[in-house]
Amino acid sequence: MKKLLGIGLASGLLGLGLLTAAQAANPKPEDVVKYRQSVYTMIGWNFAPIGAMMKGEAPFDAAAVARHADYVKMLSTAAPEGFAKGTGPDVVKNTEAKPEIWTKSGEFDTKMKNFQQEAASLAEVARGGDEKAIKAQFGKTAETCKACHKEFRKD
Amino acid sequence: MKKLLGIGLASGLLGLGLLTAAQAANPKPEDVVKYRQSVYTMIGWNFAPIGAMMKGEAPFDAAAVARHADYVKMLSTAAPEGFAKGTGPDVVKNTEAKPEIWTKSGEFDTKMKNFQQEAASLAEVARGGDEKAIKAQFGKTAETCKACHKEFRKD
Repeated sequence: MKKLLGIGLASGLLGLGLLTAAQAANPKPEDVVKYRQSVYTMIGWNFAPIGAMMKGEAPFDAAAVARHADYVKMLSTAAPEGFAKGTGPDVVKNTEAKPEIWTKSGEFDTKMKNFQQEAASLAEVARGGDEKAIKAQFGKTAETCKACHKEFRKD
Repeated sequence: MKKLLGIGLASGLLGLGLLTAAQAANPKPEDVVKYRQSVYTMIGWNFAPIGAMMKGEAPFDAAAVARHADYVKMLSTAAPEGFAKGTGPDVVKNTEAKPEIWTKSGEFDTKMKNFQQEAASLAEVARGGDEKAIKAQFGKTAETCKACHKEFRKD
C-alpha cells in the first residue's frame, strides 16, 4: 500500500502524463481551456451521430441514440468546470470563448442550464426509444447549443 | 417541428461546429484521434484531483472524489471508440498511440477492460466515502493506467 501511495503515486501521475497534483489543485488557464475543448469535442462526437439518424442519413438505432444521449447528458454536467474565471481570450490564445461568458455570466449560466436540462430530457426520451419523440427532443437540445454558441462563441 | 428537423438541423449541426452528419457516420482518422485525446484529457482532469487528495496535497473531500470518480468511470467506457482501426501513427501525426494497439489488440483490449473495471470499482468505493478504501482502489486504478501507457503509448 505504502508503495502505491508513495513512490507509486508520485511517479505514477507524473509518469502517466496526467496533470500533476499541484496542477490539479490550481490548474493553469491553458489546461482549463484544453479541458473545456475536450468536453465539447466529446459532445460533438456523441451529438452528431444522433443528428445523422434524425436526418435519415444513418439508420435509426435506438440503443445507439440512448448511449450517445447519455454521454451528452453527462458531458453537459462536466462543461461548467471548463469556464473558470481567468481563462478567456485575454489570457489564453486559441480559444473561441468570448469575454461575454464572464461579463454576462448570469446569462451564460442560464443558457448552460437550458442545455443541461434539454440534454437530460434527451437522455430520458432516448431510453424510451420512440423515434418521433427523440426527434422533437433532439431539436430542442440542438437549439440550446445554438443559442449559447451564437452569443458566447466566436464564429 | 419541420423547421427544427429540416433547415434547423441541417444548418444547426454545421453551424454549431460539430461534426457534420456525414462525418459522424464515417469519422476521419484525425477526428477519431481528437476524440480519444479529449477522452484522456478529461480522464486526467478528473483523476489528478483525486490523486492530489490521496497524496495529502489537497484536503480530502469525499463528495468531490465521488464526482470525479464517476466521470473517470464514464470516460473509461467512452475510450474504446477512440481506437478505431486506421487511426494509428502511420495515418495520423501528433498521436502518442503505438502501432501495437492494433497489432496486439487482444492485449490492448484486456488492459482497457482492466482499467474500466478498476475505474468502476473506484466509483463504487468513492460513494462509500472511506478514505482508506478509496486510497487502495485509487492505487489499483492508477496501476491499470500505467500498465497500458507503458506498453501502448509513446513516451
